[in-house]
Amino acid sequence: MSPVDSGGGLSAEQDARLRESIGRQTLLTTLGIRVAALEPGRVVLELPFRADLCQQNGFVHVGAITTLADSACGYAAMSLQPPDCDILTVEFKVNLLRPAVGQRFHATATVVRAGRTLTVCAAEVVSEGDDSRPIALMQATLMAMPAA
Amino acid sequence: MSPVDSGGGLSAEQDARLRESIGRQTLLTTLGIRVAALEPGRVVLELPFRADLCQQNGFVHVGAITTLADSACGYAAMSLQPPDCDILTVEFKVNLLRPAVGQRFHATATVVRAGRTLTVCAAEVVSEGDDSRPIALMQATLMAMPAA
Amino acid sequence: MSPVDSGGGLSAEQDARLRESIGRQTLLTTLGIRVAALEPGRVVLELPFRADLCQQNGFVHVGAITTLADSACGYAAMSLQPPDCDILTVEFKVNLLRPAVGQRFHATATVVRAGRTLTVCAAEVVSEGDDSRPIALMQATLMAMPAA
Amino acid sequence: MSPVDSGGGLSAEQDARLRESIGRQTLLTTLGIRVAALEPGRVVLELPFRADLCQQNGFVHVGAITTLADSACGYAAMSLQPPDCDILTVEFKVNLLRPAVGQRFHATATVVRAGRTLTVCAAEVVSEGDDSRPIALMQATLMAMPAA
Repeated sequence: MSPVDSGGGLSAEQDARLRESIGRQTLLTTLGIRVAALEPGRVVLELPFRADLCQQNGFVHVGAITTLADSACGYAAMSLQPPDCDILTVEFKVNLLRPAVGQRFHATATVVRAGRTLTVCAAEVVSEGDDSRPIALMQATLMAMPAA
Repeated sequence: MSPVDSGGGLSAEQDARLRESIGRQTLLTTLGIRVAALEPGRVVLELPFRADLCQQNGFVHVGAITTLADSACGYAAMSLQPPDCDILTVEFKVNLLRPAVGQRFHATATVVRAGRTLTVCAAEVVSEGDDSRPIALMQATLMAMPAA
Repeated sequence: MSPVDSGGGLSAEQDARLRESIGRQTLLTTLGIRVAALEPGRVVLELPFRADLCQQNGFVHVGAITTLADSACGYAAMSLQPPDCDILTVEFKVNLLRPAVGQRFHATATVVRAGRTLTVCAAEVVSEGDDSRPIALMQATLMAMPAA
Repeated sequence: MSPVDSGGGLSAEQDARLRESIGRQTLLTTLGIRVAALEPGRVVLELPFRADLCQQNGFVHVGAITTLADSACGYAAMSLQPPDCDILTVEFKVNLLRPAVGQRFHATATVVRAGRTLTVCAAEVVSEGDDSRPIALMQATLMAMPAA
Protein backbone atom coordinates (compact mmCIF):
# COMPACT_ATOMS: atom_id res chain seq x y z
CA MET A 1 0.00 0.00 0.00
CA SER A 2 1.08 3.57 -0.58
CA PRO A 3 -0.12 5.78 2.26
CA VAL A 4 -0.44 9.47 1.50
CA ASP A 5 2.42 11.29 3.15
CA SER A 6 2.45 15.04 3.40
CA GLY A 7 5.97 15.51 4.66
CA GLY A 8 6.45 17.28 8.00
CA GLY A 9 4.30 17.12 11.12
CA LEU A 10 0.95 18.75 11.78
CA SER A 11 0.90 22.51 12.33
CA ALA A 12 0.05 23.62 15.85
CA GLU A 13 -3.37 24.75 14.57
CA GLN A 14 -4.11 21.41 12.91
CA ASP A 15 -2.97 19.52 15.99
CA ALA A 16 -5.18 21.66 18.22
CA ARG A 17 -8.14 21.31 15.86
CA LEU A 18 -7.90 17.51 15.84
CA ARG A 19 -7.48 17.27 19.62
CA GLU A 20 -10.43 19.60 20.17
CA SER A 21 -12.64 17.43 17.94
CA ILE A 22 -11.41 14.22 19.60
CA GLY A 23 -12.23 15.81 22.96
CA ARG A 24 -15.84 16.30 21.86
CA GLN A 25 -16.26 12.56 21.04
CA THR A 26 -17.86 11.49 24.28
CA LEU A 27 -17.79 7.78 23.38
CA LEU A 28 -13.99 7.91 23.25
CA THR A 29 -13.89 9.22 26.82
CA THR A 30 -16.46 6.62 27.91
CA LEU A 31 -14.32 3.80 26.50
CA GLY A 32 -10.98 5.30 27.61
CA ILE A 33 -9.59 5.88 24.10
CA ARG A 34 -6.77 8.44 23.88
CA VAL A 35 -4.39 9.90 21.33
CA ALA A 36 -1.02 8.18 20.82
CA ALA A 37 0.14 10.05 17.66
CA LEU A 38 -1.25 12.68 15.28
CA GLU A 39 0.58 13.19 11.99
CA PRO A 40 -0.50 14.33 8.54
CA GLY A 41 -2.25 11.31 7.04
CA ARG A 42 -1.49 9.01 9.99
CA VAL A 43 -3.16 8.79 13.38
CA VAL A 44 -2.60 6.33 16.24
CA LEU A 45 -5.21 5.94 18.96
CA GLU A 46 -4.87 3.77 22.07
CA LEU A 47 -7.36 1.75 24.11
CA PRO A 48 -6.23 0.21 27.42
CA PHE A 49 -7.98 -3.04 28.39
CA ARG A 50 -10.95 -2.65 30.71
CA ALA A 51 -13.13 -5.48 32.00
CA ASP A 52 -16.28 -3.51 31.16
CA LEU A 53 -15.50 -3.42 27.40
CA CYS A 54 -15.65 -7.15 26.72
CA GLN A 55 -17.68 -9.75 24.83
CA GLN A 56 -18.93 -13.03 26.27
CA ASN A 57 -15.50 -14.66 26.66
CA GLY A 58 -13.62 -11.76 28.21
CA PHE A 59 -11.98 -10.58 24.97
CA VAL A 60 -12.37 -6.88 24.18
CA HIS A 61 -15.59 -6.49 22.17
CA VAL A 62 -15.34 -6.01 18.42
CA GLY A 63 -17.44 -2.87 18.90
CA ALA A 64 -14.75 -1.23 21.06
CA ILE A 65 -12.01 -2.26 18.62
CA THR A 66 -14.08 -0.85 15.75
CA THR A 67 -14.65 2.42 17.61
CA LEU A 68 -10.87 2.69 18.03
CA ALA A 69 -10.11 1.96 14.37
CA ASP A 70 -12.94 4.09 12.95
CA SER A 71 -11.91 7.10 15.05
CA ALA A 72 -8.28 6.72 13.99
CA CYS A 73 -9.38 6.64 10.33
CA GLY A 74 -11.59 9.70 10.82
CA TYR A 75 -8.78 11.80 12.26
CA ALA A 76 -6.22 10.56 9.73
CA ALA A 77 -8.64 11.80 7.06
CA MET A 78 -9.29 15.09 8.86
CA SER A 79 -5.54 15.72 9.22
CA LEU A 80 -5.30 16.26 5.45
CA GLN A 81 -8.41 18.43 5.09
CA PRO A 82 -8.69 22.22 5.33
CA PRO A 83 -9.64 23.62 8.77
CA ASP A 84 -13.27 24.35 7.88
CA CYS A 85 -14.01 20.69 7.10
CA ASP A 86 -15.58 18.05 9.25
CA ILE A 87 -15.34 14.32 8.52
CA LEU A 88 -18.12 11.73 8.56
CA THR A 89 -17.71 7.97 8.11
CA VAL A 90 -19.37 6.72 4.93
CA GLU A 91 -18.64 3.03 5.46
CA PHE A 92 -16.01 0.61 6.66
CA LYS A 93 -15.16 -3.05 6.68
CA VAL A 94 -13.37 -4.83 9.50
CA ASN A 95 -11.65 -8.22 9.52
CA LEU A 96 -11.00 -9.69 12.94
CA LEU A 97 -7.71 -11.54 12.80
CA ARG A 98 -7.44 -12.81 16.37
CA PRO A 99 -9.35 -12.43 19.65
CA ALA A 100 -8.67 -9.04 21.25
CA VAL A 101 -6.51 -10.19 24.15
CA GLY A 102 -3.94 -7.82 25.65
CA GLN A 103 -3.31 -5.02 28.10
CA ARG A 104 -3.62 -2.28 25.49
CA PHE A 105 -4.63 -1.89 21.83
CA HIS A 106 -3.30 0.54 19.24
CA ALA A 107 -5.08 1.44 16.01
CA THR A 108 -2.84 2.96 13.35
CA ALA A 109 -4.78 4.57 10.52
CA THR A 110 -3.18 5.81 7.31
CA VAL A 111 -4.74 7.71 4.44
CA VAL A 112 -4.51 5.65 1.28
CA ARG A 113 -6.27 8.12 -1.01
CA ALA A 114 -7.31 11.67 -0.13
CA GLY A 115 -9.86 13.21 -2.47
CA ARG A 116 -11.68 16.49 -2.11
CA THR A 117 -14.90 14.74 -1.10
CA LEU A 118 -13.94 11.17 -0.25
CA THR A 119 -10.93 9.80 1.63
CA VAL A 120 -9.98 6.12 1.83
CA CYS A 121 -8.11 4.95 4.93
CA ALA A 122 -6.66 1.67 6.14
CA ALA A 123 -6.19 0.87 9.80
CA GLU A 124 -4.49 -1.93 11.66
CA VAL A 125 -5.24 -2.68 15.32
CA VAL A 126 -2.44 -4.34 17.29
CA SER A 127 -2.66 -5.84 20.77
CA GLU A 128 0.04 -5.23 23.33
CA GLY A 129 0.93 -7.37 26.28
CA ASP A 130 2.85 -10.64 26.63
CA ASP A 131 2.37 -10.96 22.94
CA SER A 132 1.96 -8.17 20.40
CA ARG A 133 -0.06 -9.08 17.35
CA PRO A 134 -2.36 -7.61 14.71
CA ILE A 135 -5.95 -8.29 15.75
CA ALA A 136 -8.04 -6.32 13.27
CA LEU A 137 -7.85 -4.67 9.87
CA MET A 138 -10.15 -1.88 8.68
CA GLN A 139 -10.69 -0.41 5.22
CA ALA A 140 -12.81 2.75 5.43
CA THR A 141 -14.34 5.51 3.32
CA LEU A 142 -14.85 8.96 4.85
CA MET A 143 -16.49 12.11 3.55
CA ALA A 144 -15.46 15.72 4.06
CA MET A 145 -18.30 18.08 4.97
CA PRO A 146 -18.29 21.80 5.70
CA ALA A 147 -17.96 22.06 9.51
CA ALA A 148 -21.28 22.82 11.23
CA MET B 1 -33.11 -11.13 0.56
CA SER B 2 -34.24 -14.47 1.89
CA PRO B 3 -33.62 -14.66 5.62
CA VAL B 4 -33.34 -18.12 7.09
CA ASP B 5 -36.52 -18.84 9.03
CA SER B 6 -36.73 -21.85 11.26
CA GLY B 7 -40.43 -21.70 12.02
CA GLY B 8 -41.54 -21.33 15.65
CA GLY B 9 -39.90 -19.35 18.45
CA LEU B 10 -36.79 -20.18 20.43
CA SER B 11 -37.01 -22.98 22.96
CA ALA B 12 -36.79 -21.89 26.59
CA GLU B 13 -33.28 -23.36 26.72
CA GLN B 14 -32.11 -21.50 23.63
CA ASP B 15 -33.63 -18.27 24.90
CA ALA B 16 -31.90 -18.69 28.27
CA ARG B 17 -28.61 -19.57 26.61
CA LEU B 18 -28.64 -16.44 24.44
CA ARG B 19 -29.64 -14.16 27.34
CA GLU B 20 -26.94 -15.66 29.54
CA SER B 21 -24.31 -14.99 26.86
CA ILE B 22 -25.61 -11.46 26.24
CA GLY B 23 -25.42 -10.85 30.00
CA ARG B 24 -21.71 -11.70 29.91
CA GLN B 25 -20.98 -9.05 27.25
CA THR B 26 -19.86 -6.27 29.55
CA LEU B 27 -19.61 -3.70 26.75
CA LEU B 28 -23.35 -4.06 26.10
CA THR B 29 -24.07 -3.16 29.74
CA THR B 30 -21.58 -0.28 29.58
CA LEU B 31 -23.33 1.17 26.54
CA GLY B 32 -26.88 0.41 27.73
CA ILE B 33 -27.73 -2.10 24.97
CA ARG B 34 -30.59 -4.49 25.76
CA VAL B 35 -32.60 -7.23 24.13
CA ALA B 36 -35.75 -6.28 22.23
CA ALA B 37 -36.50 -9.62 20.52
CA LEU B 38 -34.87 -13.07 20.24
CA GLU B 39 -36.20 -15.41 17.57
CA PRO B 40 -34.63 -18.21 15.55
CA GLY B 41 -32.53 -16.48 12.92
CA ARG B 42 -33.64 -12.96 13.93
CA VAL B 43 -32.53 -10.80 16.84
CA VAL B 44 -33.40 -7.20 17.71
CA LEU B 45 -31.23 -5.23 20.13
CA GLU B 46 -31.95 -1.73 21.40
CA LEU B 47 -29.73 1.21 22.33
CA PRO B 48 -31.27 4.28 24.01
CA PHE B 49 -29.54 7.60 23.27
CA ARG B 50 -27.01 8.73 25.83
CA ALA B 51 -24.92 11.88 25.68
CA ASP B 52 -21.78 9.93 26.57
CA LEU B 53 -21.96 7.72 23.42
CA CYS B 54 -21.52 10.45 20.82
CA GLN B 55 -19.10 11.63 18.16
CA GLN B 56 -17.93 15.22 17.71
CA ASN B 57 -21.30 16.63 16.56
CA GLY B 58 -23.54 15.01 19.15
CA PHE B 59 -24.70 12.14 16.92
CA VAL B 60 -24.38 8.66 18.38
CA HIS B 61 -20.90 7.36 17.46
CA VAL B 62 -20.59 4.86 14.63
CA GLY B 63 -18.74 2.63 17.09
CA ALA B 64 -21.80 2.35 19.35
CA ILE B 65 -24.07 1.71 16.36
CA THR B 66 -21.65 -0.97 15.13
CA THR B 67 -21.54 -2.62 18.55
CA LEU B 68 -25.35 -2.78 18.45
CA ALA B 69 -25.48 -4.26 14.94
CA ASP B 70 -22.58 -6.68 15.41
CA SER B 71 -24.05 -8.05 18.64
CA ALA B 72 -27.46 -8.50 16.99
CA CYS B 73 -25.78 -10.42 14.13
CA GLY B 74 -23.85 -12.57 16.58
CA TYR B 75 -26.94 -13.65 18.49
CA ALA B 76 -28.99 -14.16 15.34
CA ALA B 77 -26.24 -16.55 14.20
CA MET B 78 -26.05 -18.25 17.61
CA SER B 79 -29.83 -18.76 17.67
CA LEU B 80 -29.50 -21.32 14.84
CA GLN B 81 -26.49 -23.18 16.25
CA PRO B 82 -26.42 -26.17 18.60
CA PRO B 83 -26.09 -25.36 22.34
CA ASP B 84 -22.42 -26.27 22.59
CA CYS B 85 -21.39 -23.64 20.02
CA ASP B 86 -20.07 -20.18 20.57
CA ILE B 87 -20.01 -17.50 17.86
CA LEU B 88 -17.14 -15.20 16.88
CA THR B 89 -17.29 -12.36 14.36
CA VAL B 90 -15.09 -13.00 11.33
CA GLU B 91 -15.72 -9.67 9.62
CA PHE B 92 -18.40 -7.14 8.81
CA LYS B 93 -19.05 -4.12 6.67
CA VAL B 94 -21.18 -1.17 7.70
CA ASN B 95 -22.70 1.57 5.56
CA LEU B 96 -23.81 4.66 7.44
CA LEU B 97 -26.95 5.97 5.78
CA ARG B 98 -27.71 8.99 7.94
CA PRO B 99 -26.36 10.60 11.13
CA ALA B 100 -27.47 8.63 14.20
CA VAL B 101 -29.99 11.10 15.60
CA GLY B 102 -32.87 9.86 17.74
CA GLN B 103 -34.02 8.85 21.21
CA ARG B 104 -33.44 5.15 20.63
CA PHE B 105 -31.88 2.83 18.02
CA HIS B 106 -32.90 -0.69 17.06
CA ALA B 107 -30.68 -3.15 15.20
CA THR B 108 -32.55 -6.00 13.52
CA ALA B 109 -30.26 -8.82 12.40
CA THR B 110 -31.40 -11.71 10.23
CA VAL B 111 -29.49 -14.80 9.18
CA VAL B 112 -29.11 -14.86 5.42
CA ARG B 113 -27.15 -18.11 5.21
CA ALA B 114 -26.43 -20.51 8.04
CA GLY B 115 -23.62 -22.96 7.40
CA ARG B 116 -22.04 -25.41 9.82
CA THR B 117 -18.93 -23.24 10.17
CA LEU B 118 -19.84 -19.84 8.72
CA THR B 119 -23.05 -17.80 9.02
CA VAL B 120 -23.84 -14.69 7.00
CA CYS B 121 -26.12 -12.08 8.58
CA ALA B 122 -27.58 -8.75 7.51
CA ALA B 123 -28.59 -6.07 9.99
CA GLU B 124 -30.41 -2.80 9.68
CA VAL B 125 -30.22 -0.12 12.37
CA VAL B 126 -33.20 2.23 12.62
CA SER B 127 -33.46 5.43 14.65
CA GLU B 128 -36.56 6.22 16.66
CA GLY B 129 -37.79 9.60 17.73
CA ASP B 130 -39.59 12.39 15.89
CA ASP B 131 -38.53 10.63 12.79
CA SER B 132 -37.86 6.92 12.32
CA ARG B 133 -35.33 6.08 9.66
CA PRO B 134 -32.71 3.51 8.68
CA ILE B 135 -29.32 4.83 9.71
CA ALA B 136 -26.95 1.91 9.11
CA LEU B 137 -26.69 -1.35 7.22
CA MET B 138 -24.37 -4.23 8.17
CA GLN B 139 -23.36 -7.34 6.25
CA ALA B 140 -21.45 -9.75 8.51
CA THR B 141 -19.74 -13.15 8.55
CA LEU B 142 -19.65 -15.13 11.79
CA MET B 143 -17.99 -18.38 12.75
CA ALA B 144 -19.23 -21.15 15.01
CA MET B 145 -16.70 -22.46 17.51
CA PRO B 146 -17.01 -25.14 20.19
CA ALA B 147 -17.93 -23.25 23.38
CA ALA B 148 -14.97 -22.79 25.74
CA MET C 1 -34.42 -3.05 4.47
CA SER C 2 -36.38 -0.18 3.02
CA PRO C 3 -35.53 0.23 -0.66
CA VAL C 4 -36.14 3.66 -2.12
CA ASP C 5 -39.20 3.46 -4.32
CA SER C 6 -40.08 6.29 -6.60
CA GLY C 7 -43.53 5.08 -7.66
CA GLY C 8 -44.15 4.50 -11.36
CA GLY C 9 -41.80 3.11 -13.99
CA LEU C 10 -38.89 4.80 -15.72
CA SER C 11 -39.69 7.45 -18.29
CA ALA C 12 -38.87 6.54 -21.87
CA GLU C 13 -35.92 8.96 -21.72
CA GLN C 14 -34.52 7.44 -18.53
CA ASP C 15 -34.98 3.95 -19.88
CA ALA C 16 -33.15 4.88 -23.10
CA ARG C 17 -30.38 6.64 -21.17
CA LEU C 18 -29.72 3.60 -18.98
CA ARG C 19 -29.79 1.17 -21.93
CA GLU C 20 -27.44 3.38 -23.91
CA SER C 21 -24.96 3.46 -21.02
CA ILE C 22 -25.26 -0.31 -20.47
CA GLY C 23 -24.59 -0.79 -24.19
CA ARG C 24 -21.29 1.08 -23.81
CA GLN C 25 -20.07 -1.31 -21.07
CA THR C 26 -18.02 -3.61 -23.24
CA LEU C 27 -17.29 -6.04 -20.39
CA LEU C 28 -21.01 -6.77 -20.06
CA THR C 29 -21.14 -7.78 -23.73
CA THR C 30 -17.97 -9.84 -23.34
CA LEU C 31 -19.48 -11.77 -20.43
CA GLY C 32 -22.99 -12.01 -21.93
CA ILE C 33 -24.73 -9.89 -19.28
CA ARG C 34 -28.08 -8.39 -20.35
CA VAL C 35 -30.93 -6.36 -18.90
CA ALA C 36 -33.82 -8.20 -17.26
CA ALA C 37 -35.61 -5.21 -15.65
CA LEU C 38 -35.06 -1.46 -15.29
CA GLU C 39 -37.20 0.38 -12.74
CA PRO C 40 -36.66 3.48 -10.64
CA GLY C 41 -34.37 2.38 -7.83
CA ARG C 42 -34.37 -1.29 -8.88
CA VAL C 43 -32.44 -3.00 -11.67
CA VAL C 44 -32.20 -6.70 -12.56
CA LEU C 45 -29.37 -7.94 -14.78
CA GLU C 46 -28.96 -11.49 -16.06
CA LEU C 47 -25.93 -13.67 -16.78
CA PRO C 48 -26.40 -17.02 -18.53
CA PHE C 49 -23.88 -19.72 -17.60
CA ARG C 50 -20.92 -20.05 -19.95
CA ALA C 51 -18.04 -22.48 -19.57
CA ASP C 52 -15.53 -19.72 -20.24
CA LEU C 53 -16.57 -17.70 -17.15
CA CYS C 54 -15.61 -20.22 -14.48
CA GLN C 55 -13.16 -20.71 -11.62
CA GLN C 56 -11.08 -23.82 -11.03
CA ASN C 57 -14.00 -26.14 -10.14
CA GLY C 58 -16.37 -25.17 -12.94
CA PHE C 59 -18.48 -22.78 -10.83
CA VAL C 60 -19.04 -19.34 -12.31
CA HIS C 61 -16.15 -17.13 -11.12
CA VAL C 62 -16.79 -14.68 -8.30
CA GLY C 63 -15.46 -11.97 -10.63
CA ALA C 64 -18.28 -12.54 -13.12
CA ILE C 65 -20.88 -12.62 -10.34
CA THR C 66 -19.43 -9.38 -8.95
CA THR C 67 -19.50 -7.72 -12.37
CA LEU C 68 -23.20 -8.65 -12.59
CA ALA C 69 -24.04 -7.31 -9.11
CA ASP C 70 -21.90 -4.17 -9.37
CA SER C 71 -23.44 -3.22 -12.72
CA ALA C 72 -26.95 -3.78 -11.36
CA CYS C 73 -26.13 -1.50 -8.41
CA GLY C 74 -24.69 1.15 -10.71
CA TYR C 75 -27.79 1.33 -12.89
CA ALA C 76 -30.16 1.19 -9.90
CA ALA C 77 -28.30 4.25 -8.59
CA MET C 78 -28.31 5.97 -11.99
CA SER C 79 -32.06 5.39 -12.37
CA LEU C 80 -32.71 7.90 -9.56
CA GLN C 81 -30.23 10.54 -10.73
CA PRO C 82 -30.83 13.47 -13.10
CA PRO C 83 -29.98 12.84 -16.80
CA ASP C 84 -26.70 14.76 -16.75
CA CYS C 85 -25.19 12.49 -14.08
CA ASP C 86 -22.90 9.56 -14.47
CA ILE C 87 -22.30 6.97 -11.73
CA LEU C 88 -19.00 5.56 -10.50
CA THR C 89 -18.54 2.75 -7.95
CA VAL C 90 -16.86 3.96 -4.76
CA GLU C 91 -16.67 0.58 -3.06
CA PHE C 92 -18.57 -2.62 -2.46
CA LYS C 93 -18.52 -5.72 -0.33
CA VAL C 94 -19.64 -9.14 -1.51
CA ASN C 95 -20.51 -12.23 0.52
CA LEU C 96 -20.52 -15.48 -1.40
CA LEU C 97 -23.29 -17.63 0.02
CA ARG C 98 -22.99 -20.73 -2.18
CA PRO C 99 -20.98 -21.85 -5.23
CA ALA C 100 -22.35 -20.23 -8.41
CA VAL C 101 -23.94 -23.30 -9.97
CA GLY C 102 -26.87 -22.89 -12.36
CA GLN C 103 -27.97 -22.22 -15.90
CA ARG C 104 -28.49 -18.52 -15.33
CA PHE C 105 -27.89 -15.88 -12.64
CA HIS C 106 -29.93 -12.79 -11.80
CA ALA C 107 -28.66 -9.84 -9.79
CA THR C 108 -31.39 -7.66 -8.31
CA ALA C 109 -30.10 -4.32 -7.05
CA THR C 110 -32.17 -1.89 -5.00
CA VAL C 111 -31.33 1.60 -3.84
CA VAL C 112 -31.29 1.72 -0.05
CA ARG C 113 -30.34 5.37 0.29
CA ALA C 114 -30.10 7.92 -2.52
CA GLY C 115 -28.17 11.07 -1.69
CA ARG C 116 -27.14 13.87 -3.98
CA THR C 117 -23.53 12.67 -4.05
CA LEU C 118 -23.56 9.15 -2.64
CA THR C 119 -26.02 6.30 -3.18
CA VAL C 120 -26.06 3.05 -1.19
CA CYS C 121 -27.37 -0.07 -2.92
CA ALA C 122 -27.92 -3.68 -1.93
CA ALA C 123 -27.91 -6.50 -4.47
CA GLU C 124 -28.76 -10.17 -4.27
CA VAL C 125 -27.60 -12.65 -6.90
CA VAL C 126 -29.76 -15.74 -7.36
CA SER C 127 -28.94 -18.85 -9.38
CA GLU C 128 -31.51 -20.46 -11.62
CA GLY C 129 -31.63 -24.04 -12.75
CA ASP C 130 -32.71 -27.25 -11.03
CA ASP C 131 -32.44 -25.30 -7.88
CA SER C 132 -32.90 -21.56 -7.39
CA ARG C 133 -30.94 -20.07 -4.53
CA PRO C 134 -29.25 -16.88 -3.37
CA ILE C 135 -25.55 -17.17 -4.12
CA ALA C 136 -24.17 -13.71 -3.36
CA LEU C 137 -25.00 -10.52 -1.49
CA MET C 138 -23.52 -7.11 -2.27
CA GLN C 139 -23.60 -3.86 -0.31
CA ALA C 140 -22.26 -0.98 -2.44
CA THR C 141 -21.58 2.76 -2.38
CA LEU C 142 -21.79 4.72 -5.64
CA MET C 143 -21.04 8.32 -6.50
CA ALA C 144 -22.84 10.64 -8.88
CA MET C 145 -20.58 12.65 -11.19
CA PRO C 146 -21.40 15.17 -13.89
CA ALA C 147 -21.49 13.13 -17.14
CA ALA C 148 -18.35 13.54 -19.24
CA MET D 1 0.35 -4.43 7.87
CA SER D 2 2.34 -7.53 8.60
CA PRO D 3 2.05 -9.95 5.70
CA VAL D 4 2.69 -13.58 6.47
CA ASP D 5 6.07 -14.50 5.06
CA SER D 6 7.18 -18.09 4.89
CA GLY D 7 10.78 -17.52 3.92
CA GLY D 8 12.01 -19.07 0.66
CA GLY D 9 10.15 -19.44 -2.63
CA LEU D 10 7.48 -21.94 -3.55
CA SER D 11 8.53 -25.54 -4.05
CA ALA D 12 8.32 -26.82 -7.62
CA GLU D 13 5.26 -28.88 -6.61
CA GLN D 14 3.48 -25.91 -5.05
CA ASP D 15 4.30 -23.75 -8.04
CA ALA D 16 2.97 -26.39 -10.43
CA ARG D 17 -0.16 -26.92 -8.32
CA LEU D 18 -1.00 -23.20 -8.32
CA ARG D 19 -0.36 -22.82 -12.06
CA GLU D 20 -2.48 -25.88 -12.81
CA SER D 21 -5.38 -24.45 -10.79
CA ILE D 22 -4.98 -21.00 -12.39
CA GLY D 23 -5.03 -22.70 -15.80
CA ARG D 24 -8.44 -24.21 -14.98
CA GLN D 25 -9.96 -20.75 -14.24
CA THR D 26 -11.53 -20.14 -17.62
CA LEU D 27 -12.57 -16.59 -16.76
CA LEU D 28 -8.92 -15.62 -16.32
CA THR D 29 -8.17 -16.82 -19.86
CA THR D 30 -11.28 -15.04 -21.18
CA LEU D 31 -10.13 -11.74 -19.63
CA GLY D 32 -6.43 -12.21 -20.44
CA ILE D 33 -5.22 -12.42 -16.83
CA ARG D 34 -1.85 -14.09 -16.34
CA VAL D 35 0.65 -14.85 -13.58
CA ALA D 36 3.34 -12.26 -12.82
CA ALA D 37 4.71 -13.76 -9.58
CA LEU D 38 3.94 -16.70 -7.28
CA GLU D 39 5.56 -16.72 -3.85
CA PRO D 40 4.57 -18.15 -0.49
CA GLY D 41 1.92 -15.78 0.85
CA ARG D 42 2.25 -13.32 -2.06
CA VAL D 43 0.86 -13.53 -5.59
CA VAL D 44 0.93 -10.98 -8.40
CA LEU D 45 -1.45 -11.30 -11.35
CA GLU D 46 -1.48 -9.09 -14.44
CA LEU D 47 -4.27 -7.84 -16.70
CA PRO D 48 -3.35 -6.01 -19.92
CA PHE D 49 -5.85 -3.37 -21.05
CA ARG D 50 -8.39 -4.54 -23.63
CA ALA D 51 -11.17 -2.44 -25.11
CA ASP D 52 -13.69 -5.23 -24.51
CA LEU D 53 -13.24 -5.15 -20.71
CA CYS D 54 -14.50 -1.62 -20.09
CA GLN D 55 -17.32 0.27 -18.39
CA GLN D 56 -19.32 3.09 -19.97
CA ASN D 57 -16.46 5.64 -20.09
CA GLY D 58 -13.72 3.40 -21.45
CA PHE D 59 -12.08 2.68 -18.07
CA VAL D 60 -11.48 -0.97 -17.27
CA HIS D 61 -14.61 -2.29 -15.54
CA VAL D 62 -14.54 -2.73 -11.77
CA GLY D 63 -15.62 -6.32 -12.39
CA ALA D 64 -12.42 -7.11 -14.29
CA ILE D 65 -10.29 -5.37 -11.65
CA THR D 66 -12.11 -7.35 -8.94
CA THR D 67 -11.56 -10.62 -10.81
CA LEU D 68 -7.85 -9.81 -10.91
CA ALA D 69 -7.63 -8.94 -7.21
CA ASP D 70 -9.85 -11.80 -6.00
CA SER D 71 -7.85 -14.36 -7.98
CA ALA D 72 -4.57 -12.98 -6.63
CA CYS D 73 -5.95 -13.27 -3.07
CA GLY D 74 -7.15 -16.82 -3.71
CA TYR D 75 -3.76 -18.03 -4.90
CA ALA D 76 -1.87 -16.14 -2.18
CA ALA D 77 -4.06 -18.05 0.31
CA MET D 78 -3.59 -21.36 -1.51
CA SER D 79 0.20 -20.91 -1.56
CA LEU D 80 0.27 -21.40 2.24
CA GLN D 81 -2.12 -24.36 2.37
CA PRO D 82 -1.29 -28.07 2.15
CA PRO D 83 -1.53 -29.63 -1.34
CA ASP D 84 -4.86 -31.37 -0.75
CA CYS D 85 -6.66 -28.08 -0.07
CA ASP D 86 -8.72 -25.97 -2.39
CA ILE D 87 -9.61 -22.33 -1.68
CA LEU D 88 -13.00 -20.63 -1.97
CA THR D 89 -13.71 -16.92 -1.52
CA VAL D 90 -15.92 -16.22 1.50
CA GLU D 91 -16.21 -12.47 0.97
CA PHE D 92 -14.28 -9.40 -0.03
CA LYS D 93 -14.50 -5.65 -0.01
CA VAL D 94 -13.06 -3.41 -2.70
CA ASN D 95 -12.37 0.32 -2.61
CA LEU D 96 -11.89 1.97 -5.99
CA LEU D 97 -9.28 4.68 -5.60
CA ARG D 98 -9.08 6.01 -9.17
CA PRO D 99 -10.54 5.15 -12.59
CA ALA D 100 -8.79 2.10 -14.08
CA VAL D 101 -6.81 3.85 -16.81
CA GLY D 102 -3.57 2.31 -18.09
CA GLN D 103 -1.97 -0.16 -20.43
CA ARG D 104 -1.71 -2.90 -17.82
CA PHE D 105 -2.86 -3.61 -14.25
CA HIS D 106 -1.13 -5.60 -11.53
CA ALA D 107 -2.83 -7.00 -8.45
CA THR D 108 -0.48 -7.86 -5.60
CA ALA D 109 -2.11 -9.98 -2.91
CA THR D 110 -0.50 -10.76 0.44
CA VAL D 111 -1.69 -13.05 3.19
CA VAL D 112 -2.32 -11.05 6.34
CA ARG D 113 -3.49 -13.95 8.50
CA ALA D 114 -3.40 -17.62 7.59
CA GLY D 115 -5.58 -19.86 9.72
CA ARG D 116 -6.38 -23.52 9.24
CA THR D 117 -9.86 -22.75 7.96
CA LEU D 118 -9.89 -19.02 7.15
CA THR D 119 -7.25 -16.85 5.51
CA VAL D 120 -7.36 -13.04 5.34
CA CYS D 121 -5.65 -11.36 2.40
CA ALA D 122 -5.10 -7.78 1.28
CA ALA D 123 -4.56 -6.85 -2.35
CA GLU D 124 -3.59 -3.65 -4.10
CA VAL D 125 -4.20 -3.10 -7.81
CA VAL D 126 -1.84 -0.69 -9.56
CA SER D 127 -2.18 0.72 -13.07
CA GLU D 128 0.78 0.93 -15.39
CA GLY D 129 1.28 3.26 -18.30
CA ASP D 130 2.20 6.94 -18.51
CA ASP D 131 1.38 7.06 -14.87
CA SER D 132 1.55 4.25 -12.33
CA ARG D 133 -0.89 4.53 -9.49
CA PRO D 134 -2.90 2.43 -7.01
CA ILE D 135 -6.43 2.09 -8.36
CA ALA D 136 -8.08 -0.42 -6.03
CA LEU D 137 -7.70 -1.99 -2.61
CA MET D 138 -9.22 -5.33 -1.59
CA GLN D 139 -9.60 -6.93 1.83
CA ALA D 140 -10.73 -10.56 1.49
CA THR D 141 -11.57 -13.67 3.50
CA LEU D 142 -10.96 -17.09 1.97
CA MET D 143 -11.74 -20.60 3.16
CA ALA D 144 -9.71 -23.77 2.77
CA MET D 145 -11.68 -26.81 1.64
CA PRO D 146 -10.53 -30.37 0.97
CA ALA D 147 -9.84 -30.48 -2.79
CA ALA D 148 -12.62 -32.18 -4.76
